[in-house]
Amino acid sequence: MNNGQQASVDQLVATAATAANAWAGASRADRARVLDSVADALDAAADQLIPLAEKESHLPLARLQGELKRTTFQIRLLGSAVADGGYLDVRVDRPDPDWPMGAPRPDLRRTAIPLGPVVVFAASNFPFAFSVAGGDTAAALAAGCPVLVKAHGGHPELSDATAEIVTAALQQAGAPDGLFGMVHSEEDGRALLTHPDVKAGAFTGSIPAGRALFDIAQSRPEPIPFFGELGSTNPVVVTRGAAAKRADEIVEGFVGSFTMGAGQFCTKPGIFAVPAESKMVELIRAASFPDAAPMLNERIASGHERVRTQLKDIDGVDVVAEHAEAASDSTAPLLLQTTGENFINKVDEVAVECFGPTALVVTYRDDQEALAIADALEGQLTATIMGEDDDDLVPELATTLARKAGRVLWNQWPTGVSVTYAQQHGGPYPASTAAGTSSVGTAAITRFTRPVAWQGFPEHLLPEELRDHSTAATPRTVDGRLGGDPQ
Amino acid sequence: MNNGQQASVDQLVATAATAANAWAGASRADRARVLDSVADALDAAADQLIPLAEKESHLPLARLQGELKRTTFQIRLLGSAVADGGYLDVRVDRPDPDWPMGAPRPDLRRTAIPLGPVVVFAASNFPFAFSVAGGDTAAALAAGCPVLVKAHGGHPELSDATAEIVTAALQQAGAPDGLFGMVHSEEDGRALLTHPDVKAGAFTGSIPAGRALFDIAQSRPEPIPFFGELGSTNPVVVTRGAAAKRADEIVEGFVGSFTMGAGQFCTKPGIFAVPAESKMVELIRAASFPDAAPMLNERIASGHERVRTQLKDIDGVDVVAEHAEAASDSTAPLLLQTTGENFINKVDEVAVECFGPTALVVTYRDDQEALAIADALEGQLTATIMGEDDDDLVPELATTLARKAGRVLWNQWPTGVSVTYAQQHGGPYPASTAAGTSSVGTAAITRFTRPVAWQGFPEHLLPEELRDHSTAATPRTVDGRLGGDPQ
Repeated sequence: MNNGQQASVDQLVATAATAANAWAGASRADRARVLDSVADALDAAADQLIPLAEKESHLPLARLQGELKRTTFQIRLLGSAVADGGYLDVRVDRPDPDWPMGAPRPDLRRTAIPLGPVVVFAASNFPFAFSVAGGDTAAALAAGCPVLVKAHGGHPELSDATAEIVTAALQQAGAPDGLFGMVHSEEDGRALLTHPDVKAGAFTGSIPAGRALFDIAQSRPEPIPFFGELGSTNPVVVTRGAAAKRADEIVEGFVGSFTMGAGQFCTKPGIFAVPAESKMVELIRAASFPDAAPMLNERIASGHERVRTQLKDIDGVDVVAEHAEAASDSTAPLLLQTTGENFINKVDEVAVECFGPTALVVTYRDDQEALAIADALEGQLTATIMGEDDDDLVPELATTLARKAGRVLWNQWPTGVSVTYAQQHGGPYPASTAAGTSSVGTAAITRFTRPVAWQGFPEHLLPEELRDHSTAATPRTVDGRLGGDPQ
Repeated sequence: MNNGQQASVDQLVATAATAANAWAGASRADRARVLDSVADALDAAADQLIPLAEKESHLPLARLQGELKRTTFQIRLLGSAVADGGYLDVRVDRPDPDWPMGAPRPDLRRTAIPLGPVVVFAASNFPFAFSVAGGDTAAALAAGCPVLVKAHGGHPELSDATAEIVTAALQQAGAPDGLFGMVHSEEDGRALLTHPDVKAGAFTGSIPAGRALFDIAQSRPEPIPFFGELGSTNPVVVTRGAAAKRADEIVEGFVGSFTMGAGQFCTKPGIFAVPAESKMVELIRAASFPDAAPMLNERIASGHERVRTQLKDIDGVDVVAEHAEAASDSTAPLLLQTTGENFINKVDEVAVECFGPTALVVTYRDDQEALAIADALEGQLTATIMGEDDDDLVPELATTLARKAGRVLWNQWPTGVSVTYAQQHGGPYPASTAAGTSSVGTAAITRFTRPVAWQGFPEHLLPEELRDHSTAATPRTVDGRLGGDPQ
């Protein structure tokens, strides 16, 4: 990095650090209002943004229109959750001279404060929802933190246009200067992540890139939280009962899910475990696949091709169904197949994420082998059961999959991640570097805060939500019980 | 590590991993009952345990009696919090075909599950409350995780006796075999921390030891959460108003707090900022100090002596008050002094934890310098204001200190950490390696869980607390709002 670059990163962080105090001090209602303004401005700029997204991402128009709508909805939902304040986990303990611990209990009141400037590494596969103004940015701003985005190289023009709109909307809504900034180069991204005044990182992308950034964040003199959403094979297990009753419907659904968006969803089902003694494999062989489609960019296409070839080369892994030859700028769906035994024995080689329209069918002999397949998996964003209520396998399978994944699904496909209050997007490593948190939904806000307890403070010096007769109506526990005024 | 040692660690983890599934599957009421049994057994063994603690820790009898009471109270309180279930942060989203995101909202229900086996590194300064059956052990067991303790070398006999009582109580209460285990050597501790089936670590101790373990946990092929509570200087700022009105009382309180337990509290106030133009320094010089006292062990005594000597050697740091010569096995309190300017300029050298009865008085010229001192601090467990309601300095000082610490106090001393619902013990690094979490109080449980969302599952396959008409009466939000049945 040359001196000029370092100076511009330093300048960006310095203004963000100043903005941090002002933004943390803004009322939650005000933060929600500012977020609404940003969402409105992005919606109003759809005609400018969507053509740029089409050009740079090769994703279809309807998908991008839906994604922008999802993105602005997400910003507003996180704003409303901040206004509500449940994410603060407010706790009030009144003084208790007879507290059975053996010493009087002081007046203790706990809420959460923003962490400070956050660096957000944008993803390529959702140029709106997981990019410049995506979920991480919205959650950090909502929590009260300035955001410095490292734009993804896959859509630089869209990133610039989005950043311009966000910056103007923030300014117009009266947000502090420096609350939002953006860099393009990987060098600048790393410089942000190592800057002492940057207090958290967020990332969506590949395992190697995410792990490298995680390692940087953790090896700083002051390690900082790094919320990385990396890779997942999103296994689907079809029970014998479901295979017997609904094989056609399930195969159709599976093909739709693993090829959706050219397989470039982090929740794409990449492993499809089916009973060997069923007509599933035969149906898969006969299934009609969607046309080959262009991938997001050359790097992702070649990475996909490399992993696909590695998988094909593993002993015992066969091609079960392949689409006809595609044009050179498109990628055709591919299904591979192996036995449960082979899968379990070679799980580290076989159960790897292949980001694109490729999936592996795993045939299992009996329920015990199906459970062993589930048990052999590493951490996942999602795990799905296609089952019947009365399948013997289901209760234990559901428990096993819950131990592996952040979200378990029953007779639904994992692609399509709803932005809601109860959503959990993130699971044990490598699905996430912070399995205790979610990168989608209102729970995502809490990542960018930390709790602080005020002990013995007079009413007027307390944060609003901690006061006895708070006007904020924030959900809270008093003496460990939900609700109510402390007095 | 020889093969025999590795085999015994492997065996310990293997039985813990088996116990993990059974314990995670136990009802929360059952887990609370088992924890109560452990607390009862420890209380019943007081006559055996306390003499061992006296012999090995050199702490006074009354202190140890109080600490054991605190420890068993803590175990019961965490059990009751688990039975209550608020720590699960249960969220239920009903299906909504018109969800404004642009796609129907599925039925999504989120609760938390235990992480799996946890390694707990015991501390020396609280041989009960932060050791074998201390807060981390209680929180992990309460959360549903097996615990493998690395005993502290400072009290091996007490550790063995405690472990024996805990193991017997767990067995008698019907807990799964292997739910609790213990090792003594550092090598075994590290082997546990790197074992693939261990899913989290917890630690209370020094910055170098904690950082080394944190680095090991983060550089595993599968990084795991590491909840380290490391070091803190616990600054106290006395405002000009308070110095003018209550100088005697404040000096007396400060001396009591920084010398309590021979200064071996993680919340010992090590920095005492006072107005230069006040009689505080004079009063400190004339204050009567408690007698020299033996420290926990030779390693801590020599570590304290080393840091104390380093501090004395810094230009501009003077001895302000020193107790008379102590016997060779005891350590006398010591107060050092420097100016605000010197403190700010040399903050990295001067503002270091000195674990023992040593503290640094910092004189500030004006309110602006007091704020600059606060702003120069690194992460803290606690920060305290001794102030008056009408001090101009207070609002900005309180905000600045909240940005630095996990707990801020008003006219109370930080030593003495109450075990409650709203307690927050942990702050920005180096106070903690996980500032978003607390190692004391009911919030400590959540550390050892991670959220999982169930999508589209039928009632009978859901965890009890997620069902429509749950009998568990667990606090929850439905569609983002607190309370109520989903239907």
